[in-house]
Amino acid sequence: MYPNSISNLIESFKMLPGIGEKTAERLTFAILETEEENIEFFSKSLQEIKNKIHRCPICNNLTEEEICNICSNEERDNTLCVIEDVKSLFLFEKMKVFHGYYHVLDGLISPIDGINPEDIGIEKLLERIKNKKYNEIIFAFKPSIEGETTSLYIKKVLGEEQIKFTQLASGLPMGADIEYIDSLTLERALSDRKILE
Amino acid sequence: MYPNSISNLIESFKMLPGIGEKTAERLTFAILETEEENIEFFSKSLQEIKNKIHRCPICNNLTEEEICNICSNEERDNTLCVIEDVKSLFLFEKMKVFHGYYHVLDGLISPIDGINPEDIGIEKLLERIKNKKYNEIIFAFKPSIEGETTSLYIKKVLGEEQIKFTQLASGLPMGADIEYIDSLTLERALSDRKILE
Repeated sequence: MYPNSISNLIESFKMLPGIGEKTAERLTFAILETEEENIEFFSKSLQEIKNKIHRCPICNNLTEEEICNICSNEERDNTLCVIEDVKSLFLFEKMKVFHGYYHVLDGLISPIDGINPEDIGIEKLLERIKNKKYNEIIFAFKPSIEGETTSLYIKKVLGEEQIKFTQLASGLPMGADIEYIDSLTLERALSDRKILE
Repeated sequence: MYPNSISNLIESFKMLPGIGEKTAERLTFAILETEEENIEFFSKSLQEIKNKIHRCPICNNLTEEEICNICSNEERDNTLCVIEDVKSLFLFEKMKVFHGYYHVLDGLISPIDGINPEDIGIEKLLERIKNKKYNEIIFAFKPSIEGETTSLYIKKVLGEEQIKFTQLASGLPMGADIEYIDSLTLERALSDRKILE
């Protein structure tokens, strides 16, 4: 029914998460009404994502440079934050709450899903920690069994080294209504309770 | 914060209607995880929309051919359906409820918004109707003052010709709950009531 190039663009939008037939059609019609130079820019951006972006060989961050701008910045704190994906890195950077270096894993260890240490690139992280003395290694994974498995595994393998390992605190989110909190979170908030000083 | 090509793709998605910062980021990360050939396909589809699609010189439909596949099909009914945009055409074709020819205007006459007959390409439609004898001209605009202004204008200009003009019926949508119907629709449904035969 549609001319080929219109169907193709609808199909392209439908590959994206959360975009079904109707939305894909709506977006395609919006593109048809967009100025030529903007469509050119959109098309070129997609090409460049494909051609220019690669993983930083040190930390696995996405970058266009040889080494990403975080790894090549020598002014940052000598602390290493280990995260489960590159989205976490951008989130941390956007919130400006951390000023050290990152190491991006390819997910978390999950034996039940058949994901073993070698599948998430642990070897490269272990090498990195052994070769450079960081003041502290922070595990910033989502609170989950997979997160704990992964941090415990890394800590165990590096057991002989004199390294300070920490993980993000779990507990009540700021502003949370205790009435609506789930029991696991409440249990953790209680067991990790903190002395008032 | 993001590498250039990632920011550019986020900006590209943000040009689309209903897509804000967060969604644009989410879609961009989805693209980063998409296979190269699919990104290539997406990028090429955008290029082709720009290069191949143009208006049919007869009816203003979007097409890749010289004349669109509806105008070049001589098997269709000799009825002309006048619509306000090309989306209506695709909707009609999808629903398979009409089997004649179309003429796509560039919107509707709206003196209050400064949109006059010459702005919506009426001249071409008038020529077309004068040069070919259609059994019937159907105005399929959304029920609105602009829709009525446009159909009455066309009918008036062509007043001397022996042509049957019709417009889509207004009234209660099928399955509608009378309780929730607006008063304008109810008024129209009442004044256009139909004799049971």
